[in-house]
Amino acid sequence: MRLLQILHLLEKHGEADKDLPVSSSMIEHLTGWPRDTIRKDISCLSKIEGKALGKNVGYEPELLIELIKTALGLDRPRKFCVVGLGRLGSAYLNFTPRELAEFELAAGFDTNVNRVEILQSPAPLFPAHKMAEIIRRFGIEIALLCVPASEAQAAAEKCVEAGIRGILNFAPAVLSLPVEIIVNNVYVTDALRSLAIQI
Amino acid sequence: MRLLQILHLLEKHGEADKDLPVSSSMIEHLTGWPRDTIRKDISCLSKIEGKALGKNVGYEPELLIELIKTALGLDRPRKFCVVGLGRLGSAYLNFTPRELAEFELAAGFDTNVNRVEILQSPAPLFPAHKMAEIIRRFGIEIALLCVPASEAQAAAEKCVEAGIRGILNFAPAVLSLPVEIIVNNVYVTDALRSLAIQI
Repeated sequence: MRLLQILHLLEKHGEADKDLPVSSSMIEHLTGWPRDTIRKDISCLSKIEGKALGKNVGYEPELLIELIKTALGLDRPRKFCVVGLGRLGSAYLNFTPRELAEFELAAGFDTNVNRVEILQSPAPLFPAHKMAEIIRRFGIEIALLCVPASEAQAAAEKCVEAGIRGILNFAPAVLSLPVEIIVNNVYVTDALRSLAIQI
Repeated sequence: MRLLQILHLLEKHGEADKDLPVSSSMIEHLTGWPRDTIRKDISCLSKIEGKALGKNVGYEPELLIELIKTALGLDRPRKFCVVGLGRLGSAYLNFTPRELAEFELAAGFDTNVNRVEILQSPAPLFPAHKMAEIIRRFGIEIALLCVPASEAQAAAEKCVEAGIRGILNFAPAVLSLPVEIIVNNVYVTDALRSLAIQI
């Protein structure tokens, strides 16, 4: 998780000046983690890859981004689909490839055939009964679950049957799935609460 | 943050059986935190409130929920607004009061007056030029920022001028605001990445 956040910082930093070296003390300042911990994290990467990373003045952002992505398995594109194309789900159809980084929107699904036909989308949209076929054929690994809470469990089970390995659950519902399926919940109340306790 | 997650677990547990006591070992099993840490967290609450919480069989969920909410300042309703009523923003207009817990949707804003007039919403919607007036008059503390990335910084600054204290930023943009303003970013790529590295 530390490497993920360092990756995020490096990318934001890179938008400002992609050649300016980044030092562990800059990362310490931005994250609050001790610079020794950061150096240790990065030196692990360097060992994995067998490349010399450190300079006295800092790390080269582009090289470090590449090393972190490789170490975390984010160096290959991953396909995801959006399940449920209401307001929330259809919003994710509009993200640009740049905003999605190494993730590729491969398909969208909805039980409402009308919606599937009318919505504008850069990726193909399908009626929900085609989920199993399309997810397998396209090699989709991740689903963004954007259905209403009452439909979330059934939709998640269909994803799992079709071969989805990870679910980002936006529905305000708790899913009960086999342990090997990774579920990350994105609950708006949790985000609101963690904000509220800081203000 | 541990108390927040315990709160979340207790509420989900409560939906199944609100009278069944919850023990620290159950929380340990669900979260992976040592039960001693959990007991210490809860005993702090008990001291703050001067109530006896523990029983041999566990904690009473409803009492514990109340104590955690009080300790975290979540025992009073907080007003929030949605800024930007495109697909993503308008999705948040549809959350039920139950799904929003102690947060109250007080208003929505968009620069597009047409959209403001046409959208169905349980809370009143206003054109963006009324933000300062409405946010002050209604005592709104939190903004969900759902505008496009290119408009995020300007919209965030308008929120801050109007008296907003915390921003949940859904726009894929980095905001630069006074340090006393709390910003929590909800980036879909971060969520996708933290899922991808687990599968």
